[in-house]
Amino acid sequence: MNTGNKALKDVVGIGNAMVDVLAHADEAFLAHHGLAKGAMTLVDAPRAAGIHKAMGHAVEMSGGSVGNTMAGLAALGGTGSYIGKVHNDQLGRIFHHDLESLGITFSTAPALDGAPTARCLVIVTPDGQRSMATYLGACTELGPEDIAAETICGHRVTYLEGYLWDSPRAREAMVKAARIAHAAGGQVALTLSDPFCVDRHRDSFRDLILNHVDILFANEAEIISLYQARDVYAALERGRGDCRVVAVTRSEKGSLIASGDMVYPVNIVPVEWVVDTTGAGDLYAAGVLFGITHGYDLAKSGRIGAIAAAEIVSHLGARPEANLSELVQQSL
Amino acid sequence: MNTGNKALKDVVGIGNAMVDVLAHADEAFLAHHGLAKGAMTLVDAPRAAGIHKAMGHAVEMSGGSVGNTMAGLAALGGTGSYIGKVHNDQLGRIFHHDLESLGITFSTAPALDGAPTARCLVIVTPDGQRSMATYLGACTELGPEDIAAETICGHRVTYLEGYLWDSPRAREAMVKAARIAHAAGGQVALTLSDPFCVDRHRDSFRDLILNHVDILFANEAEIISLYQARDVYAALERGRGDCRVVAVTRSEKGSLIASGDMVYPVNIVPVEWVVDTTGAGDLYAAGVLFGITHGYDLAKSGRIGAIAAAEIVSHLGARPEANLSELVQQSL
Repeated sequence: MNTGNKALKDVVGIGNAMVDVLAHADEAFLAHHGLAKGAMTLVDAPRAAGIHKAMGHAVEMSGGSVGNTMAGLAALGGTGSYIGKVHNDQLGRIFHHDLESLGITFSTAPALDGAPTARCLVIVTPDGQRSMATYLGACTELGPEDIAAETICGHRVTYLEGYLWDSPRAREAMVKAARIAHAAGGQVALTLSDPFCVDRHRDSFRDLILNHVDILFANEAEIISLYQARDVYAALERGRGDCRVVAVTRSEKGSLIASGDMVYPVNIVPVEWVVDTTGAGDLYAAGVLFGITHGYDLAKSGRIGAIAAAEIVSHLGARPEANLSELVQQSL
Repeated sequence: MNTGNKALKDVVGIGNAMVDVLAHADEAFLAHHGLAKGAMTLVDAPRAAGIHKAMGHAVEMSGGSVGNTMAGLAALGGTGSYIGKVHNDQLGRIFHHDLESLGITFSTAPALDGAPTARCLVIVTPDGQRSMATYLGACTELGPEDIAAETICGHRVTYLEGYLWDSPRAREAMVKAARIAHAAGGQVALTLSDPFCVDRHRDSFRDLILNHVDILFANEAEIISLYQARDVYAALERGRGDCRVVAVTRSEKGSLIASGDMVYPVNIVPVEWVVDTTGAGDLYAAGVLFGITHGYDLAKSGRIGAIAAAEIVSHLGARPEANLSELVQQSL
């Protein structure tokens, strides 16, 4: 990777721009509302309203998987931009503010009509697991016209959110961005986002990865599902044939980073109490992308990911509260 | 107080309905933006936008002084209703949800045109103190037409937010509510809200208190300013001539509750680390009002207030995260 060109920023992320609405609830709440534990369920506006009504007092903060990663990257001292679609409404302006205030450039024009800014209802159960009901709203309007070549070319890595693959026009945007990135000598990263998302799109995801992806992020369930493999090692074997780097998170078992013939195991950074796992994978990706774009080897990059993930699970919400850059300097 | 009529709910609160936007910043930020430390500064929409732009990544949650008190009352096991004006927008619906989800009835019709839902930009400095810039938005449209006699009559205490006194039509609403409450045999409580608010309205506040208020909440600076007294004890002397109960908070020195010839000192409940003082006074009022409406004596009511305040200063935000009812049962 070209980490020497100082004019380039580190990462441009493309994702579903949404505000998280976080509340605590028990397992019965998930069952009652038909939400899969630990996963993301897409809901329409009336169902989102019904679930929100049943939720307790909540806290709102900007979210979105790649949005969280970009916030983490900034907190680590990295630089970047974000492409995603909000509506020109209160939640959209909050989302915009929260990235820009971290130094992340967010230049996608907001939608002036159509659906409101997306929101993700996050139910945190007593074990710290998060289950999500997402109303996509304005996110569904992201299309190839939102991908500006000069934005993509200005970054070392273009990072794509797997959730976007649900929308045909967002798919076009992702492929367009990947082509521009490669033509400019950049790298393309993808997160698989969710095992159900992989189930919905297995074959087309494999094509996307084989043809356009250099760095793949997944958790164990996602990559096993993607390759219909018997275990994570068999899946990794397949993955590292398809792309240059594959990083797989495994909850309390840490993560594995594979590249060429090597597999680097990475331990978790223990935390006193897991409050809320929302954003753990997103912040792990932030750490690995920060490491890769700053000339760290893969083992160290994985360690930075583990440090960032540890910070995020120790409090409510998926955006960092601590100075991750300092945490990394203390722990590396 | 009639605590025996089971058909009555405990408290109906009338206040500025707003969403808090909380972020950490240093003292220089306050100076640069002309914000008085520990107090509330009213700002117009452009100035609010400028301060928000300069703030870091934030967390949003429902707030408003009396809104926080009602949330605290509900968390203590109390019952009640809320009267306040939001716009029919995203933040308004979030505010509405957060009270209703706690069992607090919020039946004020949202404004369909005019200004958006109010927000309070809360800057938390490293010492845990909060300084606020409030854009009142839809709150300024609250008027006497929003006071339904049947709502006021259904509660033991009508609790008024001093901040409302800035708006002439809200003043009418407050006086109307107080008259209805007294005609129905209920009590009227008032919080002075802010020393600058007292400075703006000293004489008319004194009239309001003398003519309409049974239970007065203030902090030390507010009540000294109200009565232009030499110290808190001289101010208390004046206050208990004007109303039945006067409760004065004094930060780490605890609080004083005066009634008739008696003054009850109440110690603080120590917390390991003061994270954010936002809502401390609001939650103290929740505890005292809960105590008074549930037949506790004033000393015990003050103790419940101290327990609720201790919970709120130990985390970011002005709405309780713990089960206050359990905390009180353990500590009383």
